[in-house]
Amino acid sequence: MTTAAFRPLRAAEITAWDHEADVVVAGYGIAGVSAAIEAARAGADVLILERTGGWGGAAALSGGIVYLGGGTPLQRELGFEDTPENMKTFMLAALGPGADEAKISDYCDGSVEHYRWLTDNGVVFKSAFWGEPGWEIPGDEGLMYSGGENSAPFNEIATPAPRGHVPQMSNKRTGEQGGGYMLMKPLAEVAESLGVTPVFDIRVQRLIVDDADRVVGIAAKKFGDEVFVRARRGVVLTTGSFAYNDAMVASFAPQLIGRPAAAIEEHDGCSIRMAQALGADLAHMGATEVAFFADPQLMARGILVNGRGQRYVPEDTYPGRVGQLTLLRNDNQAYLVIDEASYEEGCATTSSTPYFRFPPKWAAETVAELESDMGLPEGTLQATVEVYNRHAAAGADPVLGKKPEWVRPIGTPVAALDLRNCTAGFTLGGLHTTVNSEVLHVSGEPIPGLYAAGRCTSGVCAGGYASGTSLGDSSFFGRRAGIAAAAN
Amino acid sequence: MTTAAFRPLRAAEITAWDHEADVVVAGYGIAGVSAAIEAARAGADVLILERTGGWGGAAALSGGIVYLGGGTPLQRELGFEDTPENMKTFMLAALGPGADEAKISDYCDGSVEHYRWLTDNGVVFKSAFWGEPGWEIPGDEGLMYSGGENSAPFNEIATPAPRGHVPQMSNKRTGEQGGGYMLMKPLAEVAESLGVTPVFDIRVQRLIVDDADRVVGIAAKKFGDEVFVRARRGVVLTTGSFAYNDAMVASFAPQLIGRPAAAIEEHDGCSIRMAQALGADLAHMGATEVAFFADPQLMARGILVNGRGQRYVPEDTYPGRVGQLTLLRNDNQAYLVIDEASYEEGCATTSSTPYFRFPPKWAAETVAELESDMGLPEGTLQATVEVYNRHAAAGADPVLGKKPEWVRPIGTPVAALDLRNCTAGFTLGGLHTTVNSEVLHVSGEPIPGLYAAGRCTSGVCAGGYASGTSLGDSSFFGRRAGIAAAAN
Repeated sequence: MTTAAFRPLRAAEITAWDHEADVVVAGYGIAGVSAAIEAARAGADVLILERTGGWGGAAALSGGIVYLGGGTPLQRELGFEDTPENMKTFMLAALGPGADEAKISDYCDGSVEHYRWLTDNGVVFKSAFWGEPGWEIPGDEGLMYSGGENSAPFNEIATPAPRGHVPQMSNKRTGEQGGGYMLMKPLAEVAESLGVTPVFDIRVQRLIVDDADRVVGIAAKKFGDEVFVRARRGVVLTTGSFAYNDAMVASFAPQLIGRPAAAIEEHDGCSIRMAQALGADLAHMGATEVAFFADPQLMARGILVNGRGQRYVPEDTYPGRVGQLTLLRNDNQAYLVIDEASYEEGCATTSSTPYFRFPPKWAAETVAELESDMGLPEGTLQATVEVYNRHAAAGADPVLGKKPEWVRPIGTPVAALDLRNCTAGFTLGGLHTTVNSEVLHVSGEPIPGLYAAGRCTSGVCAGGYASGTSLGDSSFFGRRAGIAAAAN
Repeated sequence: MTTAAFRPLRAAEITAWDHEADVVVAGYGIAGVSAAIEAARAGADVLILERTGGWGGAAALSGGIVYLGGGTPLQRELGFEDTPENMKTFMLAALGPGADEAKISDYCDGSVEHYRWLTDNGVVFKSAFWGEPGWEIPGDEGLMYSGGENSAPFNEIATPAPRGHVPQMSNKRTGEQGGGYMLMKPLAEVAESLGVTPVFDIRVQRLIVDDADRVVGIAAKKFGDEVFVRARRGVVLTTGSFAYNDAMVASFAPQLIGRPAAAIEEHDGCSIRMAQALGADLAHMGATEVAFFADPQLMARGILVNGRGQRYVPEDTYPGRVGQLTLLRNDNQAYLVIDEASYEEGCATTSSTPYFRFPPKWAAETVAELESDMGLPEGTLQATVEVYNRHAAAGADPVLGKKPEWVRPIGTPVAALDLRNCTAGFTLGGLHTTVNSEVLHVSGEPIPGLYAAGRCTSGVCAGGYASGTSLGDSSFFGRRAGIAAAAN
């Protein structure tokens, strides 16, 4: 990348435009396709510039969970009550502090309509609920808990409702057409049917502004040639996170150094940089999703302890919360202590979710032996198990609030899985945008002609995370970006 | 603040300059005065624009600790060995991950010279060491531990050396001329003697650039009038942190919402915003210092437990580390459990540091009673005390590594202090600058004519903190800013 990278160009310097459209979208992932569809429906002709050879982005490779609620048809069919207010209460508690209340409010109020928009555009959610502890649905059910809504402490804060909506997959086991692909495919087909024109293998690099500092185009590279693309109404940036920009990760989210995940290598932060060069503001640059590579079926049946042998999380919660608490608060040190019977049971569950399952590193006849084998200070793990068992005998977990259905005393023989350094994640911070997906200048005013959505923006998450909020806010505010850009 | 705030002005638009100098410094705190002195010595005529009615900034109100090491004359006189390499090892371990290695390296290599610069300019460090647990020195000794160098885990990573250098105070007890004042006063006098011109009661608002995007001045408000100040060689931004900008705190460091401290209300982030409007890059915007309002003399003699009754920090470490671990990792929930004898001893220490001392909230004849009175789940605190006492009987703390001198079994009667919500702090993130204090554009190139230092920049701290690193890197890289600006 040359040092001129990211610096805006002046429109007056452009002698010939290679492409031209009303709305130009950079990035053909979930935010980009959503923006393109809405802009096209609003009467704009739309060009999408995509760096790779096809549509999809990180979304098409993902599990496809979309965070929706407030009483979607799927929730209601499956017997779950939810309201926009209840959804807001959960999101503000789980995704803050400092979360963008206006965005969360709009997102929750518009969630049922957004569900309909997705299904109207061909996304299929099978009317079946999957209620096991897990990261992703192994079958093709359409609804799951994906943010710890039914676990402590959130089950005391808001009425639990599952909000992870998963597009129906054709064959998850063989890896064909996973949930993310089944989300992207119908939307890309709709975009095409509306006349949206994709340009592939093109890499955006610099924004182009007129003399009034309005964004009127974008400069890109295609097979080594500089290409100038004019946007008559607006530019929409949707090129994803900065998880694969090592320098930005070191500067803004150093806890993720060396552990990017669930993003794609094209997530290099270029949209953020291009807009920053125009004085765009940022938000929540340190916020990160954190995945935890351990089987939730086993976790719920044991206890997770840190490097001091102490419990720190209700083991039946959303695994992404386990990941955040492990990496950000416990030095990435975690062990799962589980007795033989529970381990066997977890491995044998009929609706098995064989993700991240591996054998124990240590096994012993007593907790004292196990503690010694693990190298924990004498008495630490024993004290933890003793306190846990004392309450578990009565079916309770007053320390962390694990649900009674998963609470039972830890017996012997007992084993421990080594879950140190089992985390990875992607970045959640980015451009500071309005609820209409306008990119804000540090003055507090929108930058004319510039819109953004998806993981190059700060969305509904300020620090916490729930699976599906990225595909969720990317599509929701992607639509807003397309509508706003086309309205110029 | 108008919406035009922060947007750069074009020099061509300025019809008359109200002030003019070679180097214009915004902010008359420790970074500003250091920049001014060096710029003046390099032959530049220098103007300092200060928003308040006098010099000082947050520095003059602070405890005055300057983090210096690598074998300063004061360290050597008092019998402490240190090297630049040893200092780097500590700083990289304690202030990262993601810390700016180049800055830390230069800072450590130049620390002895920087000590001499301070003393040559009239700052006095009394040759006496203060070795008690504490935040700030109650007397006028010149050297203390200020970052947990002599506590776990850092005492195993680098050779412990005290690096908190404190300017000698005339009368700390009465609040007259504290350490920070005694740091600023001689430097301000030197600046004045060199002909540096201060302009007070003036508020900087926008940078002024020429047609090549070089910074050539700054626009400000003085009693309602817009004032244009031309900088022939460069502008140096040193107006402090964003701790008192509520919107920026919510966006970048939400853990500090409602709890700013050790900054002054003028710390509104305006330098960061003005430079961002030119495309300046940021770094470590989420990093924060966190003070903890509890007496270190008492903490070292007891055990600190979180809301689950678990220990989480060696109680004899730097209180700022206690603060960070409490706020950022333990939901701001902390209790100090201490027996009566230790409490009395802590209160009666001859070299008493009566900071943040208050009586226990609970007292009981047994740990079980105390636990119940505190509302902790049955068995939790008892298990913690039992494990602690088991090892303390042998003078050890294998769980957290508290030093043997502070380890003794907790007896009865026993009490607990309520230390929940006892934290506050200031922000450490800001403009991304080079080791020569040039402000970097997101392209990776310096912005011509623009320099910055102090807490409007990201300095040597990426997340951890040691007392004195702010006055330390502000003065160290403030000097660099003055030298670089004058060299144009």
